[in-house]
Amino acid sequence: MDIKEVLSSKEKFLAYYESVHPADIAAEIGEWEPEDLQKMCTYLSDEDLAEVLEQCDDDEREDIAGQVDDDRLVRLFEHMQKDDIADCIGLLPTARKKALMNRMTADDRRVIAKLLQYPEESAGGIMTTAYIALKETLSISQALQKIREIGPKTEVIETLYVINVHRQLVGTVDLRDLLAAPKDATVQSITDNDVISVHPEVDQEEVASLVAKYDLKSIPVVNARSAILGIITVDDIIDVIIDEYDEDILQMAGVSKEESIDTTLGESIRMRLPWLMINLATAFLASFTVKMFQSTIEQVVALSAVMTIVSGMGGNAGTQTMSILVRDLSHDEVHTKQAVRALIKEILLGIIDGASTGLVTAVIVYFMYGNFYLSLIVLLAMIGNLVIAGIFGLLIPLTLKKLNADPAIASSIFLTTATDVLGFFIFLGLATVFLQKLV
Amino acid sequence: MDIKEVLSSKEKFLAYYESVHPADIAAEIGEWEPEDLQKMCTYLSDEDLAEVLEQCDDDEREDIAGQVDDDRLVRLFEHMQKDDIADCIGLLPTARKKALMNRMTADDRRVIAKLLQYPEESAGGIMTTAYIALKETLSISQALQKIREIGPKTEVIETLYVINVHRQLVGTVDLRDLLAAPKDATVQSITDNDVISVHPEVDQEEVASLVAKYDLKSIPVVNARSAILGIITVDDIIDVIIDEYDEDILQMAGVSKEESIDTTLGESIRMRLPWLMINLATAFLASFTVKMFQSTIEQVVALSAVMTIVSGMGGNAGTQTMSILVRDLSHDEVHTKQAVRALIKEILLGIIDGASTGLVTAVIVYFMYGNFYLSLIVLLAMIGNLVIAGIFGLLIPLTLKKLNADPAIASSIFLTTATDVLGFFIFLGLATVFLQKLV
Repeated sequence: MDIKEVLSSKEKFLAYYESVHPADIAAEIGEWEPEDLQKMCTYLSDEDLAEVLEQCDDDEREDIAGQVDDDRLVRLFEHMQKDDIADCIGLLPTARKKALMNRMTADDRRVIAKLLQYPEESAGGIMTTAYIALKETLSISQALQKIREIGPKTEVIETLYVINVHRQLVGTVDLRDLLAAPKDATVQSITDNDVISVHPEVDQEEVASLVAKYDLKSIPVVNARSAILGIITVDDIIDVIIDEYDEDILQMAGVSKEESIDTTLGESIRMRLPWLMINLATAFLASFTVKMFQSTIEQVVALSAVMTIVSGMGGNAGTQTMSILVRDLSHDEVHTKQAVRALIKEILLGIIDGASTGLVTAVIVYFMYGNFYLSLIVLLAMIGNLVIAGIFGLLIPLTLKKLNADPAIASSIFLTTATDVLGFFIFLGLATVFLQKLV
Repeated sequence: MDIKEVLSSKEKFLAYYESVHPADIAAEIGEWEPEDLQKMCTYLSDEDLAEVLEQCDDDEREDIAGQVDDDRLVRLFEHMQKDDIADCIGLLPTARKKALMNRMTADDRRVIAKLLQYPEESAGGIMTTAYIALKETLSISQALQKIREIGPKTEVIETLYVINVHRQLVGTVDLRDLLAAPKDATVQSITDNDVISVHPEVDQEEVASLVAKYDLKSIPVVNARSAILGIITVDDIIDVIIDEYDEDILQMAGVSKEESIDTTLGESIRMRLPWLMINLATAFLASFTVKMFQSTIEQVVALSAVMTIVSGMGGNAGTQTMSILVRDLSHDEVHTKQAVRALIKEILLGIIDGASTGLVTAVIVYFMYGNFYLSLIVLLAMIGNLVIAGIFGLLIPLTLKKLNADPAIASSIFLTTATDVLGFFIFLGLATVFLQKLV
C-alpha cells in the first residue's frame, strides 16, 4: 500500500481508515512525512483523529499536536480519556500547556493538573480516572442503574470499586455477582474486602509485577488515607512491561531505548557514539594491562594468541551470570541471604566451569606449543578469570539495584572491563612469574 | 516468616493461607522441601489446593501432582478451569495421563483431549474454554439471563462473543451496550462485527503482539471455518510476554530460560557449561587468527596490546546493533526494504563511528608508541571492524528469524566470533603489509 496514494484524496483515505484499526494508523505515522500527517489531520473528524491520538506513542503525539491548532486540540480532548489528555498535554511546551489548560472547564482542569503532578513512570502517571466507584450503601438496582449510565465512559466494568462515605476504598464488586444478586440487597453485602491497591508514587515496574503476579485486570490507586484516586488497567500494564524489558535489553548493550531499526543515521550516531567512546576508555585499560607485560610477551610471543581466550571466556561466563541477575531483578527483590548463597555458588561455578574449559584449553595449547607450563598457566588463569566473572556478573547488577539505578544500565561495560583487565593480568602475571619455564 | 514453623500445624498453616493470596503460596513452594509440600497438600481443602495449583508454574505443578493420588487430583480438577487442567495433565507421564482422562466425564475428556492436541506455545495451547458465546438471535433479556447463569464460571464477561447458527463467530458485544439496550432487542442489533481473532496454531508470541497492539482484554480463537474454539485472556498474555522477553535476554547470553538466582550449582553447571564449551571453540578461532600473525607480532610486540582494542570495540558496536534488532523483531516483522535501508545505515554508521573512535585511538596510540603507521593501521582496522560489526549485528538476528529460529538464540556467539576473528585479521593483516614501516 502506497500511503502517498491513499492520502491523495479525502475519500481514499477515509475508505482506508475504515478498513483498518486506529492502532494500525498509529503504528505507521512515525514513518510519514509532515505533509502526510497534515493531510490526515485535515481529513479525519475530531472523533477519529482523537482515537488515533490515543493509540499513538509520545513522539507521534507530539507530531500530531504540532499539526493542529489549540481550538482543534481542545475539541480532540473532548473525545479522549483524562489520562491520555494529561499525557498529551505533558508533552507540550509550557506556554501551550497553560493556554490549553485555561480553555478547559474548572473540573477538567483540576483532574488534569492532578494527573500531571505525578511522575510519568509512576502509578499516578499511568492511572486513569475512568472507573466506576459505588458507595457501599447503594442497593443493587441503584448500582446497576449507575453502571448503565457511566459504564460507557469507563475503561473497566467487570470490577467495580466500592467506597465508603469518606471516599475510602473498602473493596471491590465483581459484576458477575452484582448481576446475580437480589435487586434490593446492598452493594456492601457482595463486596470483597480483599483488594490489592497501590499508592500513586509507586514505580510503574512494581505495579506491573503486582498485576502479573496476581493476574489482575486492573488495580486501584489510593492515597495515604485510602481514598481512591484512579485505576490502572491491564492494557497500560502491558505497555509498561514491554517498555521496561526493551529498556533492559537495550541498556545492557549500551543503546538508548529510543532507538529502532528505523532510526536515522544522524540519530543513531548521536545515541551510540558516546557509549562507544566510554567503551574505548575501558578498552584502553585492558590494552595498558597487556602493555605492562610487553617484555614478557616479547620473550614468549605465543602468549599474545592465548591471552585472548582467557579474557574472552571470562566475558562470556560473566554475561551468563549478569543476564540471569538482570532478569531476576526485573521480577523480584533479591534478599541478602539469597545473594550470599548465590555468590558462593558463582565462585564454585567459576572454579568448576573454569577447570573444565581450562583443561580443554590446556590440552589444545599443549598440542599447539608443546609447553607444559604454558598449559598450566592457561588452566589457572581460566579458573581465576571465571571466578572473577561470576563475582562481577553477580555483584554489578546487585550494586546498581542497591544504588537505585537500573541493573541493566551499563552493566556489560563494568563486566567486560573487569574480565578483560583482570583476565589479562592473571594470565600475563602468571606467565611473568613462570617466565623461565616458558622461554 | 519461617515456613517450617507455619507448616508445623494445620491451624497455623490455614491461618497463614487466609492471610495471603494463593499466588504468594505458588511463588514460594518452589523453594520448599518435598515434606513441606506434602504437609500443605494434606492441610488444604480441595478447593484451596486447586487454587494454588492454578497459580503455579509447570515445575511446581508437577511437584504437587506428585504429592497427591489420582482420586485427589480428579477432585482438584473439579475446581479448575479446563485449560489449567489440560496444562497439568500435559505434564504427567502418559500412563497417569490416560488413567486420569478415563475418570472424567465424556464431555470433559473431549474438551481436554482437544486442548492437549495444540502445541503448548500456540494460541490453542493457551486458550481457555471458559467464555460466553451468545447466539445472535437471542433477545437482550435472554442474553442477560445466560450471563447471570454461566458468568461466574467464565474468565471474561466484559466482552461477549456472538455466534450464528453454525457456531461461527460473527462479532462481539460489549456488556456495557447489553446493559443499556432495550430488553426486547436482539443481540444481533448491538453486535460489533469488527473482531480480531486468531487460529489455534498461531504462535503465542504473535498473539501477544496483537493483544498489545490493539489493547485487547481477550482474543477469540477460531478454526478454519470461523467456529469459535476458545478465548485467550490478557493475564495469560502477560505471562507470554514475560516468558518471551526472559527467553530473549537469557538466550542472547547463552543461558537457559529455566535458570534463576536460586538454581542449584549442579543445574547451573549442566545448563551453562555446554555454552561455554561452544564459546571456547570460537575463542580458539580468534586465537588461531592471532597465531597466524605470530611472526609479525614477534617483530612489533606493541601489536599485541593494541589488537585487543580493535576486537573489543567491534564486539561492543555489534552488540548495540544486534540488541536493537532482537528487540524490534520481538515486536514486528522487518520488511526487506527496511532491512536494506538499515544495512546501508549500519555500514555508514560503522564508517563514522569507526573513524571517530579510531581517530581517538590513533592519537593515543601515537603518544604511546610514537609510530605514525601503527596509528594509521589502528584507524583503518577500527573502521573495518565496526563496519563488519554493524553488518553482522544486523544480519545475524535477521537470518535467525528467516530460518524460523529465535533471533536471540546464540546471536552473541556468532557476532563475537565475527568481530574477534575479522578484527584481529584486519588489524594484524594490515600490520603485516606495513611491517617495514612498523619495525
